Amino acid sequence: MEIVSKKASESLLMMTELVLPNDTNAFGNLMGGRLMYWMDIAAALSAQKHANAPVVTASVDNISFEAPIILGNAVYIEAKVSRAFKTSMEVHLSVWGEDLKKQQKYKSNEAYYTFVALNESGRPATVPQVIPETAEEMKLYEGAMRRRQLRLVLGGKMKPEEAVELKALFFG
Amino acid sequence: MEIVSKKASESLLMMTELVLPNDTNAFGNLMGGRLMYWMDIAAALSAQKHANAPVVTASVDNISFEAPIILGNAVYIEAKVSRAFKTSMEVHLSVWGEDLKKQQKYKSNEAYYTFVALNESGRPATVPQVIPETAEEMKLYEGAMRRRQLRLVLGGKMKPEEAVELKALFFG
Amino acid sequence: MEIVSKKASESLLMMTELVLPNDTNAFGNLMGGRLMYWMDIAAALSAQKHANAPVVTASVDNISFEAPIILGNAVYIEAKVSRAFKTSMEVHLSVWGEDLKKQQKYKSNEAYYTFVALNESGRPATVPQVIPETAEEMKLYEGAMRRRQLRLVLGGKMKPEEAVELKALFFG
Amino acid sequence: MEIVSKKASESLLMMTELVLPNDTNAFGNLMGGRLMYWMDIAAALSAQKHANAPVVTASVDNISFEAPIILGNAVYIEAKVSRAFKTSMEVHLSVWGEDLKKQQKYKSNEAYYTFVALNESGRPATVPQVIPETAEEMKLYEGAMRRRQLRLVLGGKMKPEEAVELKALFFG
Amino acid sequence: MEIVSKKASESLLMMTELVLPNDTNAFGNLMGGRLMYWMDIAAALSAQKHANAPVVTASVDNISFEAPIILGNAVYIEAKVSRAFKTSMEVHLSVWGEDLKKQQKYKSNEAYYTFVALNESGRPATVPQVIPETAEEMKLYEGAMRRRQLRLVLGGKMKPEEAVELKALFFG
Amino acid sequence: MEIVSKKASESLLMMTELVLPNDTNAFGNLMGGRLMYWMDIAAALSAQKHANAPVVTASVDNISFEAPIILGNAVYIEAKVSRAFKTSMEVHLSVWGEDLKKQQKYKSNEAYYTFVALNESGRPATVPQVIPETAEEMKLYEGAMRRRQLRLVLGGKMKPEEAVELKALFFG
Repeated sequence: MEIVSKKASESLLMMTELVLPNDTNAFGNLMGGRLMYWMDIAAALSAQKHANAPVVTASVDNISFEAPIILGNAVYIEAKVSRAFKTSMEVHLSVWGEDLKKQQKYKSNEAYYTFVALNESGRPATVPQVIPETAEEMKLYEGAMRRRQLRLVLGGKMKPEEAVELKALFFG
Repeated sequence: MEIVSKKASESLLMMTELVLPNDTNAFGNLMGGRLMYWMDIAAALSAQKHANAPVVTASVDNISFEAPIILGNAVYIEAKVSRAFKTSMEVHLSVWGEDLKKQQKYKSNEAYYTFVALNESGRPATVPQVIPETAEEMKLYEGAMRRRQLRLVLGGKMKPEEAVELKALFFG
Repeated sequence: MEIVSKKASESLLMMTELVLPNDTNAFGNLMGGRLMYWMDIAAALSAQKHANAPVVTASVDNISFEAPIILGNAVYIEAKVSRAFKTSMEVHLSVWGEDLKKQQKYKSNEAYYTFVALNESGRPATVPQVIPETAEEMKLYEGAMRRRQLRLVLGGKMKPEEAVELKALFFG
Repeated sequence: MEIVSKKASESLLMMTELVLPNDTNAFGNLMGGRLMYWMDIAAALSAQKHANAPVVTASVDNISFEAPIILGNAVYIEAKVSRAFKTSMEVHLSVWGEDLKKQQKYKSNEAYYTFVALNESGRPATVPQVIPETAEEMKLYEGAMRRRQLRLVLGGKMKPEEAVELKALFFG
Repeated sequence: MEIVSKKASESLLMMTELVLPNDTNAFGNLMGGRLMYWMDIAAALSAQKHANAPVVTASVDNISFEAPIILGNAVYIEAKVSRAFKTSMEVHLSVWGEDLKKQQKYKSNEAYYTFVALNESGRPATVPQVIPETAEEMKLYEGAMRRRQLRLVLGGKMKPEEAVELKALFFG
Repeated sequence: MEIVSKKASESLLMMTELVLPNDTNAFGNLMGGRLMYWMDIAAALSAQKHANAPVVTASVDNISFEAPIILGNAVYIEAKVSRAFKTSMEVHLSVWGEDLKKQQKYKSNEAYYTFVALNESGRPATVPQVIPETAEEMKLYEGAMRRRQLRLVLGGKMKPEEAVELKALFFG
């Protein structure tokens, strides 16, 4: 029998990386592109834990990089599926840097990556629904509908006037 | 004397990469994260050509991956600064894959990366304004204001009701 | 004032990696050397969390690779400082693989890496002592003395007859 | 029906790379070997565009490295098929570095790589002839015969006295 | 007919690597994990030369890192099969660094990696016995039995009291 | 006192690499560019052994790739300085592949890389002369003058009619 729903917490995935010289720009800080590469792998593994199927990256939402992460610092990435639609999953990511010497941990960014699960013939496969439990998981679950509408509007696949939840967010 | 404005076309940058085994997922297709890494470098080089100063990635707009790019295919990335603000620049990217054997070129995605120019002390530096010339450059230049408002709203740095141009786009 | 002791749990570090084509041998399994590379980074970061100082790898104990980790599977590495000596720390590592499709998690190996903390002039620096709390942490803490004696004997820095605790382990 | 000839310009390929720390020698300059690696990929993609078939590197002509390319600078590689023989193609490469801050573009080297096209069984496959159009393409087309003779003589596959065109170049 | 024994010297393998920026820690010295990665490949190639079959890493003995190897220095790894058991082989490794400018060569460490040979179905395959010839090869051959007992005891696969040769080493 | 000459054999350097998936083209064979990268490092290390000074790649002579080296095979590179001029050194390289399972060793190519030694200010530094001892070293030493003339003629730095030794080679 197929699994119809799974807890959000079951898809939690924690990745740690070390910023090495080749990951940095002229200022000795982690390049945005290298970070997005690690985030893609962390998010894909989280989506696979939820779907128990291979997945491919469908889209990435707006990412804003706050504090730069410095050469030699640790990078912590936490990924968890926030909501599943029919064959796709939105994964929420939080990224921190840490200067282990000074014991300073700082937030770098939050992001949402969307993945589609595929079956063996490479066609989209139905995925279990997500059961949010904590207050934060519920907030992420609710917001997922708005973010999906924004993605569809930006991708030209939904008319702005049909994006009811997004409209409410933007203009009350 | 400082340069106060430069043509959009002066920042054009073309990058070509080959999809190698380590860049691919279980289906033999280019991983989204690896592509975003290459796009970050192409966009950063384009922004540096415009600014004549080192730059750091500030944000990445929503990216939607259309056709998967296949192992052994070529990846073409075209980057050009679409508009400059005081110390930041929006770079427009177009990405194609090509199966060189079948001579089939296919669109993968379009994206916008934003960079901030820095001076030698690592502080934001003023950048030249962009002079759009072609019809496409003008369209990208105009849209840049709306996309900037969306970034600010999503980043919690602007109230939705103040995003006049974005509002017009969404809800007429 | 200097920190004289820290809880073992404060140094816990969890790393996740994805096995990519270039990490595998002719059988499509993760190469031992690539895994030891990731383990070294995970263990070094854990030791740095404990010491709040940069560290260098001093030694690695006998590692026995059980189940092979397969291409496309996830690799989970958990590292925690088990005991600190004057300027060195023993880090305990547990490694699992997971086939995310079949939801099968399997143990790959356990290992002990030893690091020395260094000050700014590159000289060994005193590190805080470890406070073990759980039953497992206590067991690891106790065993650390025997493993240290074995390292010293194998490295020709201690005579076997002086390795009292080791002797007790081996020959009652 | 098979294509019997294609314009030289159809095989034009432009690659851009950024010099990262791991690409550099003790002086912070791009290592020759890393550059030859990138040139091989650029030239192979250009040859594949011409042949519409997979290709393998057959030989590389004498390369002389002029100005060193510096850490953080951009590397521009332009590749175009100069002439095709029965199953092989000579690709002409031009390489520049650019200090984007100072807006200084400098020539690094010019080179010729030769590729053989292969069919699905891995046997050499006939490739279209090249139609040179510009003055520069014609010059490269003409010189290709001399360079081919030099390759054959150096490879011990042609007697010096048979290399008529080469002889004319060298000794009038 | 199958080969039943081969000289130790036939499996000798010499690897040289250059320490690049991405291989180093905060002190500009080669990371232990990167070195163990190179050692694994050198040892695996040596074992394959002996077995004429693909091999997988079974275990690694205690390694103690002596002198740090510095950025830009050469790394020399010498690997040779010291003894074969039924389907496994112990490989002895010696590692040196060299500052080519100062002409200083220094010992980094010695290590033992154990490999299992596999047949085409991935099952352990019988390997030729080793014929030690020089005094050093004989010493390594003899010691291999003790080290094997230590591995088995540490892996919980042999009771300490059965490890006769190991016991003799430790406590006369 | 400065060393005025060194034996050719003192600069011998042996490198071994394993062909991994990311090193291969569509046919599963080692890409020419990756091999030239490894050859550059092997040759540079050999030149540094001779010069006891850092070196930079000045030029690479015509390379012709014979047998392709296959995924999973070993690559053996032997580098030795063949002759030194005032501040430059020619390094001779021999490259073999080996299928360790079938015990088949095959020649891939021979090549000549030229390096310039630099002092601490980055200016060309005088290097010791080479003393050839074996018949092969003498042959390489003699041929070096002709190859140097060819490099100078091809680089437009010598008139063909002045290349006396080269002329003799080509046209008796």
